[in-house]
Amino acid sequence: MRAELLGLCAAGLLLGGCFKQPAQNDTANSAKEVHQVLTDWQKAFEAKDVNGVMAMYAPGPAVTAYDLVPPLQYKGADAYRKDYADFFAQVDGPLHVDIRDEHLEVSGNLAVDYGLERISGKLKGGQPMDSWVRYTSVFKKIGGQWKDIHDHVSVPADLGSGKAALDLKP
Amino acid sequence: MRAELLGLCAAGLLLGGCFKQPAQNDTANSAKEVHQVLTDWQKAFEAKDVNGVMAMYAPGPAVTAYDLVPPLQYKGADAYRKDYADFFAQVDGPLHVDIRDEHLEVSGNLAVDYGLERISGKLKGGQPMDSWVRYTSVFKKIGGQWKDIHDHVSVPADLGSGKAALDLKP
Repeated sequence: MRAELLGLCAAGLLLGGCFKQPAQNDTANSAKEVHQVLTDWQKAFEAKDVNGVMAMYAPGPAVTAYDLVPPLQYKGADAYRKDYADFFAQVDGPLHVDIRDEHLEVSGNLAVDYGLERISGKLKGGQPMDSWVRYTSVFKKIGGQWKDIHDHVSVPADLGSGKAALDLKP
Repeated sequence: MRAELLGLCAAGLLLGGCFKQPAQNDTANSAKEVHQVLTDWQKAFEAKDVNGVMAMYAPGPAVTAYDLVPPLQYKGADAYRKDYADFFAQVDGPLHVDIRDEHLEVSGNLAVDYGLERISGKLKGGQPMDSWVRYTSVFKKIGGQWKDIHDHVSVPADLGSGKAALDLKP
């Protein structure tokens, strides 16, 4: 009986599961890692660096994005890369991002970060651009790295006027 | 050494952690549980039952919702309940919900469900309402129950016309 239990336990150790509680340290480390990915994204986004931005995302078909602009969804990294590239092409100079009311949830191999984001800059026509949007980003640990598999970015819709509410402030 | 390991392992068993791998069964069960919550929400939403709808959400301040309509965010269950009640008050008869391209991710105590959702019905003025929206919902296991802590529901914004894109189809 003892030997049996011990054998099972040794097997558990080999698999990395024995004695291992869902450690608060693991969660704290994961939160730090996800935050670093978001910080890197922000730097790349502000510099309009498409490759830097796309480094945050899972490659291939794993990404589904609901962006500020149509269509309803972007399926896969290639489609989302083109969406970013099209947006950056309309902007003159750098972009600026402010985050407010951020929430980060982590458990095991899944993390979600959501909050309000002010995106400001200047369009190539000279018009200023300055909107608060809502963002939700879902991360999965794939091959030891946190990768974004889902973005949802939007402004509310005023159903009375049919207008997108691009000028709201938190 | 053997006895020591065994002792540690027994302690681990008491704590529920020994031999316990992040089981695929646990994840499959969690996915089923979250799906049941969503099915219950859909029934309540279609029947315009505010209490039934709110049963899905974490009580108190834990919920942050980015809804289809302004403001940018609803903070807490009371604010979100009022948002649902205001919407239901504008609708004549039942609502109908279709879900497409659903994704469900679960790890430990965290789950995320996202997809496209067609909401249709008739407004009290007689006008039909029929829009595809994007939804992202985040669930956390709290006191043994999966509770929604974050919703994000939106349509894209057409930046050229400033209109909310309420008539897109997947």
